[in-house]
Amino acid sequence: MNPVTEVRTDSRVPECDIRRTGLLPEHVTAFRRQGVLAVRGLLTPEELADAQQAGKTLIDRAWSTRSMDDTIWTLEPHLPDAAPVRIEYVVDKARPIAVLAGHPLLLRIMEQLVGPNLIPTWDSMVFKTPAGAPRLAWHRDAGLYTDAVGVTGAGRVIDAGIYLDPAPEDNCVWCIPESNYWDDERLTTTADRLNASEWDTTGAVPAVMRPGDALLHNILTLHGAPAVVGKQRRVIYFEYRPAEVEWQLGPHTESYIGLKQQILRSCVRMRAAESRFGDEEPFDYRPAESFRHWADQPESTTFRVPHEDHWR
Amino acid sequence: MNPVTEVRTDSRVPECDIRRTGLLPEHVTAFRRQGVLAVRGLLTPEELADAQQAGKTLIDRAWSTRSMDDTIWTLEPHLPDAAPVRIEYVVDKARPIAVLAGHPLLLRIMEQLVGPNLIPTWDSMVFKTPAGAPRLAWHRDAGLYTDAVGVTGAGRVIDAGIYLDPAPEDNCVWCIPESNYWDDERLTTTADRLNASEWDTTGAVPAVMRPGDALLHNILTLHGAPAVVGKQRRVIYFEYRPAEVEWQLGPHTESYIGLKQQILRSCVRMRAAESRFGDEEPFDYRPAESFRHWADQPESTTFRVPHEDHWR
Repeated sequence: MNPVTEVRTDSRVPECDIRRTGLLPEHVTAFRRQGVLAVRGLLTPEELADAQQAGKTLIDRAWSTRSMDDTIWTLEPHLPDAAPVRIEYVVDKARPIAVLAGHPLLLRIMEQLVGPNLIPTWDSMVFKTPAGAPRLAWHRDAGLYTDAVGVTGAGRVIDAGIYLDPAPEDNCVWCIPESNYWDDERLTTTADRLNASEWDTTGAVPAVMRPGDALLHNILTLHGAPAVVGKQRRVIYFEYRPAEVEWQLGPHTESYIGLKQQILRSCVRMRAAESRFGDEEPFDYRPAESFRHWADQPESTTFRVPHEDHWR
Repeated sequence: MNPVTEVRTDSRVPECDIRRTGLLPEHVTAFRRQGVLAVRGLLTPEELADAQQAGKTLIDRAWSTRSMDDTIWTLEPHLPDAAPVRIEYVVDKARPIAVLAGHPLLLRIMEQLVGPNLIPTWDSMVFKTPAGAPRLAWHRDAGLYTDAVGVTGAGRVIDAGIYLDPAPEDNCVWCIPESNYWDDERLTTTADRLNASEWDTTGAVPAVMRPGDALLHNILTLHGAPAVVGKQRRVIYFEYRPAEVEWQLGPHTESYIGLKQQILRSCVRMRAAESRFGDEEPFDYRPAESFRHWADQPESTTFRVPHEDHWR
């Protein structure tokens, strides 16, 4: 073990310039080891502009309706200081986001990391409007498993955050490399210590992102973000899980798998039908035969599959 | 789903010509989907000759001693028709096999498939002498987990079989692609049906191998082999598991991890010290910091770590 190498590797988020190199074995290993990977330049300028417009429309609608439907606010929305910070089920709410969910480069990365039976689970937009947002406390994501490190320490349940705005060091997600392998005690102790003050980044590295980049994080990786005011930062999150894990260990029921596979296939088809993506090779979704559950389902009429309707 | 594509993909074992292409994303996905991958040309002719000589020495010794120490026989070894078929802990018994366990191409493949915290678990030579060996009944390998398909259906516990002799269609392992994702009921029903007659290959594909090739199989993939007489076929098996799985789910105790990491490191060092491997870049074993257990251990004096001393 070479300490110099260690410092170099762990002092920053590993990166993949996806359109130049593709996903290389060293990117896969870095993600599996460190629990995080920055994918640079995933979106073309045109696709980024479309996603930004869709994001703007959704946030404008939240402000104008002050609705809590699928929308999380910092305070009760009728209060003057309230600001929206998260909208759920965005694939259902905006065609450019559905088309983004069919992105072949993103899905091929996920096939490598999650496996051929990948299914999309959560989809949301998390954002900070110029009205501000509080810190995101240090945490692991939801939907954890018993023996989580054994099941997915190496990273098979993955959140892909697609950035619509810049995330500089003072307004970005920070994460602790390799915390995806920590046991519950070390995780809890560290999170409690860091969360005891307003913003402590001891042991963490910043995930500085540019619009059109994607940050992949293992849901077990400890991460957080500082409070910020006066800056807009919108991120579209797509989470992916292996269908065989969902099937045996949840957190959703078995019926969820086919519904989400149908949606994934629809997003790929919608994208392929748009002439501007004519040069792309569409993602070829080919799970194992025993995990092709979409045929059991009637054609879905919505891309919104409420989690609470499908908990075990 | 295109039936033509399906037939093409599933009617044979996927292959990787490792020295020409390296392990490509499509090889990774094929292995994860089908539960098996043939790695062609892993050994150079020189390394193959060394391994063959080591295999011969071990088998000759079994015949001359008729010992049952670490050796499995078809019948009690004093019986005239008895033949040896398996020798355990071969990394401890022959330096060329220890050096083989440090093979950088093999270990880099395993790092991609098992993850950065890979540890070696079982090591053995399984063989058919010209005296013959009975069929290997259809089975999954040992050391399975509760919810095995969720834990390792996609292939994180892997047996690498390195072939010292040819394995033609009438004397090779057959496997059922994608059976790594089957539930217990389907697995048991199918294995029982196939094992009801002497040799039934319904739904299976042959893993035809040449000396110096390696066959990787997910331990959940249903496989078997026909009885054979009059042909020699020797295979060195190295099994690998992720340390984080071993740590939380077994089957070995935690103390096993550091011992086997030490042995892996020793094998890599032994190989690097041999001038004939001077052109190789040694494997750089770099598990996550919380899974570097070798430093907790006294330097090991043996490469033989009996499983039964470390069961949970």
